[in-house]
Amino acid sequence: MKTAAQYRKELNKMRANIHIAGEKLTRDDPRLAQPINVVAATFDAALEPENKGLVTTLSKVTGAEINRFCNIHCSTEDLLNKQAMTRKLCHKVGGCIQRCMGIDATNALSVITYDTDQKYGTEYNKRFMKWLEHFQKNDIVANCAQTDVKGDRSKRPHEQADPDLYVRVVERKSDGVVIRGAKAHNTIAPYAQEIIVLPTRALTTEEKDWAIAFAIPADAEGIHQIVRLASIPIRKHLQAPIAAFGDAESLTVFDNVFVPWDRVFLNGETDMGGRLALQFAEYHRHSYTGCKPSITDIVMGMTALVAEYNGVAKAQHIQHKLAHLIGVAELVTAAGIAASVTGKKTASGTYIPNSIYVNAGRRLAGENIFHEYEILCDVAGGWYATLPHEEDWFNPETKAYLEKYTMRNPRISPENQHRLFRMISDMMTSHWFGVELGGQYHGGGSPIMETIGILRDYDLKPKMDHVKYLAGIPLDDPHG
Amino acid sequence: MKTAAQYRKELNKMRANIHIAGEKLTRDDPRLAQPINVVAATFDAALEPENKGLVTTLSKVTGAEINRFCNIHCSTEDLLNKQAMTRKLCHKVGGCIQRCMGIDATNALSVITYDTDQKYGTEYNKRFMKWLEHFQKNDIVANCAQTDVKGDRSKRPHEQADPDLYVRVVERKSDGVVIRGAKAHNTIAPYAQEIIVLPTRALTTEEKDWAIAFAIPADAEGIHQIVRLASIPIRKHLQAPIAAFGDAESLTVFDNVFVPWDRVFLNGETDMGGRLALQFAEYHRHSYTGCKPSITDIVMGMTALVAEYNGVAKAQHIQHKLAHLIGVAELVTAAGIAASVTGKKTASGTYIPNSIYVNAGRRLAGENIFHEYEILCDVAGGWYATLPHEEDWFNPETKAYLEKYTMRNPRISPENQHRLFRMISDMMTSHWFGVELGGQYHGGGSPIMETIGILRDYDLKPKMDHVKYLAGIPLDDPHG
Amino acid sequence: MKTAAQYRKELNKMRANIHIAGEKLTRDDPRLAQPINVVAATFDAALEPENKGLVTTLSKVTGAEINRFCNIHCSTEDLLNKQAMTRKLCHKVGGCIQRCMGIDATNALSVITYDTDQKYGTEYNKRFMKWLEHFQKNDIVANCAQTDVKGDRSKRPHEQADPDLYVRVVERKSDGVVIRGAKAHNTIAPYAQEIIVLPTRALTTEEKDWAIAFAIPADAEGIHQIVRLASIPIRKHLQAPIAAFGDAESLTVFDNVFVPWDRVFLNGETDMGGRLALQFAEYHRHSYTGCKPSITDIVMGMTALVAEYNGVAKAQHIQHKLAHLIGVAELVTAAGIAASVTGKKTASGTYIPNSIYVNAGRRLAGENIFHEYEILCDVAGGWYATLPHEEDWFNPETKAYLEKYTMRNPRISPENQHRLFRMISDMMTSHWFGVELGGQYHGGGSPIMETIGILRDYDLKPKMDHVKYLAGIPLDDPHG
Amino acid sequence: MKTAAQYRKELNKMRANIHIAGEKLTRDDPRLAQPINVVAATFDAALEPENKGLVTTLSKVTGAEINRFCNIHCSTEDLLNKQAMTRKLCHKVGGCIQRCMGIDATNALSVITYDTDQKYGTEYNKRFMKWLEHFQKNDIVANCAQTDVKGDRSKRPHEQADPDLYVRVVERKSDGVVIRGAKAHNTIAPYAQEIIVLPTRALTTEEKDWAIAFAIPADAEGIHQIVRLASIPIRKHLQAPIAAFGDAESLTVFDNVFVPWDRVFLNGETDMGGRLALQFAEYHRHSYTGCKPSITDIVMGMTALVAEYNGVAKAQHIQHKLAHLIGVAELVTAAGIAASVTGKKTASGTYIPNSIYVNAGRRLAGENIFHEYEILCDVAGGWYATLPHEEDWFNPETKAYLEKYTMRNPRISPENQHRLFRMISDMMTSHWFGVELGGQYHGGGSPIMETIGILRDYDLKPKMDHVKYLAGIPLDDPHG
Repeated sequence: MKTAAQYRKELNKMRANIHIAGEKLTRDDPRLAQPINVVAATFDAALEPENKGLVTTLSKVTGAEINRFCNIHCSTEDLLNKQAMTRKLCHKVGGCIQRCMGIDATNALSVITYDTDQKYGTEYNKRFMKWLEHFQKNDIVANCAQTDVKGDRSKRPHEQADPDLYVRVVERKSDGVVIRGAKAHNTIAPYAQEIIVLPTRALTTEEKDWAIAFAIPADAEGIHQIVRLASIPIRKHLQAPIAAFGDAESLTVFDNVFVPWDRVFLNGETDMGGRLALQFAEYHRHSYTGCKPSITDIVMGMTALVAEYNGVAKAQHIQHKLAHLIGVAELVTAAGIAASVTGKKTASGTYIPNSIYVNAGRRLAGENIFHEYEILCDVAGGWYATLPHEEDWFNPETKAYLEKYTMRNPRISPENQHRLFRMISDMMTSHWFGVELGGQYHGGGSPIMETIGILRDYDLKPKMDHVKYLAGIPLDDPHG
Repeated sequence: MKTAAQYRKELNKMRANIHIAGEKLTRDDPRLAQPINVVAATFDAALEPENKGLVTTLSKVTGAEINRFCNIHCSTEDLLNKQAMTRKLCHKVGGCIQRCMGIDATNALSVITYDTDQKYGTEYNKRFMKWLEHFQKNDIVANCAQTDVKGDRSKRPHEQADPDLYVRVVERKSDGVVIRGAKAHNTIAPYAQEIIVLPTRALTTEEKDWAIAFAIPADAEGIHQIVRLASIPIRKHLQAPIAAFGDAESLTVFDNVFVPWDRVFLNGETDMGGRLALQFAEYHRHSYTGCKPSITDIVMGMTALVAEYNGVAKAQHIQHKLAHLIGVAELVTAAGIAASVTGKKTASGTYIPNSIYVNAGRRLAGENIFHEYEILCDVAGGWYATLPHEEDWFNPETKAYLEKYTMRNPRISPENQHRLFRMISDMMTSHWFGVELGGQYHGGGSPIMETIGILRDYDLKPKMDHVKYLAGIPLDDPHG
Repeated sequence: MKTAAQYRKELNKMRANIHIAGEKLTRDDPRLAQPINVVAATFDAALEPENKGLVTTLSKVTGAEINRFCNIHCSTEDLLNKQAMTRKLCHKVGGCIQRCMGIDATNALSVITYDTDQKYGTEYNKRFMKWLEHFQKNDIVANCAQTDVKGDRSKRPHEQADPDLYVRVVERKSDGVVIRGAKAHNTIAPYAQEIIVLPTRALTTEEKDWAIAFAIPADAEGIHQIVRLASIPIRKHLQAPIAAFGDAESLTVFDNVFVPWDRVFLNGETDMGGRLALQFAEYHRHSYTGCKPSITDIVMGMTALVAEYNGVAKAQHIQHKLAHLIGVAELVTAAGIAASVTGKKTASGTYIPNSIYVNAGRRLAGENIFHEYEILCDVAGGWYATLPHEEDWFNPETKAYLEKYTMRNPRISPENQHRLFRMISDMMTSHWFGVELGGQYHGGGSPIMETIGILRDYDLKPKMDHVKYLAGIPLDDPHG
Repeated sequence: MKTAAQYRKELNKMRANIHIAGEKLTRDDPRLAQPINVVAATFDAALEPENKGLVTTLSKVTGAEINRFCNIHCSTEDLLNKQAMTRKLCHKVGGCIQRCMGIDATNALSVITYDTDQKYGTEYNKRFMKWLEHFQKNDIVANCAQTDVKGDRSKRPHEQADPDLYVRVVERKSDGVVIRGAKAHNTIAPYAQEIIVLPTRALTTEEKDWAIAFAIPADAEGIHQIVRLASIPIRKHLQAPIAAFGDAESLTVFDNVFVPWDRVFLNGETDMGGRLALQFAEYHRHSYTGCKPSITDIVMGMTALVAEYNGVAKAQHIQHKLAHLIGVAELVTAAGIAASVTGKKTASGTYIPNSIYVNAGRRLAGENIFHEYEILCDVAGGWYATLPHEEDWFNPETKAYLEKYTMRNPRISPENQHRLFRMISDMMTSHWFGVELGGQYHGGGSPIMETIGILRDYDLKPKMDHVKYLAGIPLDDPHG
């Protein structure tokens, strides 16, 4: 397994194809430092003895110990462990751990390349398994670029005014394919080593050119990442772990990018394209049953602590709000556990979680995220929102005033009062906040996507038939 | 295992101590027939081959095959099976299967009598295990009488104006104890063979007389059951399975009832009284993770079927409401699964479900029950509420009008249209409905009780400490 | 103005065309006594001096003092008074006052007959004004029969398999029209003197036969009322005002009913048929801003009183639930006030309330009704649901037990404790409850109907244009 | 009336007492330009002929035409106009118009100084009326500094470890009082000309020193404003009206500030201190019935426009979400209208709005604000959250990619697509967003404060008594 230092070193060698605010950057630019710290934490964690077996596991391909983010799930236990690892590591970095992208994409490919080969006599799975060995051996950080920019939402890919509005094959050559299009909302992509591209939706038979999946180095020729930063505000004086972390997401442009055959994992099988899109989504929703409770843990921790600092921890309505946060976190967790233990082995040998539970769990999380921050806002009071700028707390002209007037519980030092409200202010009023809210709402599929998933996968007929039975309507009555 | 016929025969031999609407009845009174049908279904189900291993299991006491309602959980698998059986059997009877009372009370006694003996050197577990043999061998139907009438809710048991407002020991004799008080909301009691009495709350050391648990035949001398009926309306013409079922709940009065020592399972150990109350509640909330999804299944089946009959099944807002019902049912189920697989073996060998998950699951169910019927009301439209009386559908003067004007989807026969709306009307406008809503809201503990349970059992300190870490507040700072 | 006694006497002279549970009844049947008591209260109230100017007003047609239920609104003050009267009278009868049907239908006719005459040169308004004089002079109780049975909801009236599934003209004769069809959910119809029939929806030009409006005696030849009763349970011993009231709703069948021209108020003008349907709905939603707060008042009164009886009135979560009930009641009221004071004078001289406010107010009421009873259920606890039958409280064998064990606050007598829980039980577990819930949810249009109304009447364009302005998108840009 | 230019000129003459991010600034600092633009808009609006009578009115003190923000309400019409003006002006500036602070504080003082004089024989009203003349004549912009920093929330002012945690009189001199303490969340204060200080809560008789109200120039000796900026991000290229506006809020420190008697409006009358706090809150909640609908208008405009741009405007679930936004905006508006028309004339002659309606309306607004942005987030999709930085849209290397791949509806130009998403991104992911959410939730009192207000002012007794009547419980029964 790699160290964080090695990961950073490898990043620094990559081609400058990161665009931020009008500049083209290499990956050692300080603006990327906070987001990179998040991924670095996944390497650090794997080396800590207490995480053995949780953040690490043995590869079923090579037998070697690998970082679990590179693992293919071979049991329901693996699914449970991925969920538990995700909750634990998100704690560490105060939010999204980001690297689930790779594990969710590779697992989906493992299932669907196998089924595609069975159906179409292709060799995608063999290619994929070979690539997977490289992925595991080199402890690769991968982005999954799934969401197309989609153009007119009321039209299908092949109906768009510009066919590039969904990523597609523009040329098939003897040694590979040429790709054009763009993928949006690519968390982790600016500091990933590889990008795994998957289709974003079900496809019709006219849409062979859009039924494409592959892996590609993130700095390959023709790839341009136009990046939105959203990190926790950097502190000048009041250092704290939370301020070390951040996020960056790219619009990843594929401008005639060549992909050699050994990295192509689907190419024209439209039915399997839709299934691949879906399978990734379900693995990713399973990841959310780990990460979203972790974020709720932090919101609940801030809420409970600020209630104590404010001297209102015993108020019944505040207690009830904490109980609501606990309920959301643990129901989402329960959904992930149920999805894991009722997970199924596929023909490929890879395990998939139960789709109903992952959808119901991810939806509950998405439906609550705004409300969770509303609870924190409610209990914290307005001080986090009007908290004077950090520098004023260290300016001799204003310092004493701020320390005097921020006092709540007299047992707590002014610095600690400041620290807590600074953290809440950073979490709730920064640029990071709005991006994070958007991500937690839409990432992995917004609630409406889970509703669609539930309606697609749930069989209502037995329920209707049972009502017919109870009502005395014969099941075989053509008039019933 | 007993047959339903044997069960009915045994009931008919019991002493007349059932009071309904001013009369004193034996258990063969037709007014009790519908509720008894529900319990009879638990005997029938155990004899069906497809239910072997689900509704039956092998006794860990005698090794014999027993009805699972008499089982003590010896594995997480047992917990999962109880949940699954409950969902299946509630389907059969269109609602609460009622017999969970016995299994939840006996399992709680199994855990707490053991711990009490360990702590106090008593012999409750030995007595209990002997009684359990009788219980399993005779396939006994038991009520659990837990909820005291409670008098002034702002006062403790020993502070009440009338000490009998919580069931208590009024005399200790050489051969047993004498009991006075009343338990409320005793579902199944009027057609149970035994009543298991447990404390209802935590007790202080002054409250030894209220720290009492025992089992007693339901027609023992001094027991008066004052019973509220709430059955599905009986049909005159339009027979249907749903109309066969019902519910009855008693206020069970203990007027100086003698209980011999071999049936006394707790007697004065106040700390264990509180734990016993709680342990029953948690088992019972686990049962709700089986029964409440089953009730939602029926509500969702009616909603989906009436949408089809009304010709509006494809409307997006109706689809989304169905998806909400599915989400509630499956999140509650997931909570039960997670509670089961993370269940723990106690010192007694009996397994208990995880309290956080059962509380969060039961609460979600309780918070949604009114809303679930609101959805059915919404989708059905008003016809279930103003549906003319059954007799008018069979009166030659009005029959043709009703059949003509009830028509919706022309493919469906008038009788089937009538059957569906009659069922919805029976489920939503009868006396049964209001009682059922009350039961589904409060039974096993209303949502506020689960909130209290969650706040009691969940450890917020690690969440607060983690926030301190992220904010840079030292954990050992006396001013933090 | 009429007395209640005169009203009853007139009812008793009507032809027996009421079908209930297989029998054909006259209006003096005891089963109709409770519902008739409700309407009788509107006559009593008009004679009470304190209600002068509120329940009475001066007719703008004749100048005579009339019951406000017969009034045409000639000012915003009239709209405010109708709302206030409705809230007050619903209090009296513990629920829906029912007679708003007539006032809402006549006002809608007053507006639309006028506009139709202007547009089509017809004489509907003259006919209507003549009929109105009779209506006011004789203090007539009218039902408004609007909701058609509607058949397949996905099809329009003229597309139904059976054209009678919407009420229509089957023959036009020299002296009038012949009508066939049925109207559903006709509250008050069984004890109304006249039925006012209006279209239920927008109509296309093919649907002239369905564009019909008229008034007809409720016992006219060819009218068959098939009636669903839903009254508060009748008491044997524990008399109380609430037990005197009830509700009955008919499916009103028109089997070739002849209507003479002077009672026909619309006949074939399809565009005006849709407007008439809508105008009635908006008046009726305005009535709901009076009645729904009144029902919430009673729910809130029960909740506050039972909290006091249970000794939990000070608990913060209960206080907050009361505050929620208050909020719903007063926001709905505010919507009615705003709708009244921003009401507009139409060409006819009649005032109409603002449609946005009545729709938003009625929707809020509808969205909350299940939740309001959920709050009462929550605060009352389960005793209302398992309350033993009334007779047991007067049976010497059980009376003492019930009185002893129902005790809560020791200051309150057992009879009063019983009285309160009996009322809650009657309101929450009776047949009446389910019908009432359905009525309060769907009556006047279920929440989805108000959503449709809001989307139809609200102009979003200025809001979108203003956003364009703020964003710097030129309003006249063809590419914006 | 003043022009915006005059206002700016006056500001620039003020003493530098604004602290931002470690610097001490005068009011012409560019960082204050955006917030000042908001207030400038209130001067511009008053001079536009279309706003005559809405943004202007005639002073009841001097008879001169004044800006309505300086008006004392002398009729229910005035209350309605203040609400309507607030909605209109917030539109202009894309959010909070801020200047309501002054009008709400002066009206509250007008009522309470009068009542205090009546009760205590003081002369506060005379002083106040004199000061008011200056306020109106000079078209003064005032902040109302109400919210104390409050220290330990579980303790009263006089119980705090540091008595300065609530603003108080530290010395009474012959010519005035000396003040110490700090007020938080002072919107508009950094560019207000005067600060009006009011108590923040009910006070006990020990708390005379905290029962103080006065007006003071915002740059008076001893006043230090420590300011948090929260403006819409400044654009480099893509100019738009929305980017011109912003907000700044101060912690206003009073470090031994001298206030001469003619500016002291309450001094030690503790009972009136509580009433004054409350009266300001109720006027301010009335202002929210104007501003919050205006903010919802903008959210709804963005939602409707982005739905159109995305090509999903017709989807039913999106339509229903728009209808929800409309409902919230118009119910809050209705609450303000009802509060205005049922407003009462006080002894002073000043009109106050109905407290129940303002509380219920403001609460509904507060309870929905997070959810409103959730709807916008839902309908917009994730692009606003990951939108690349503005500069990248003008960088030749990336411009073409961004314009190509942002395309949705092909009719809309790339620039306009960018403009809309830039506005949503500015509104939803900037520093401004979090501060705004906090302000809209807590400002004027968070929902829990309105709940407390409702519970304080609403009389539940008549509701309980009416239930007693319906249940047959005598009103005068000592046991009832």
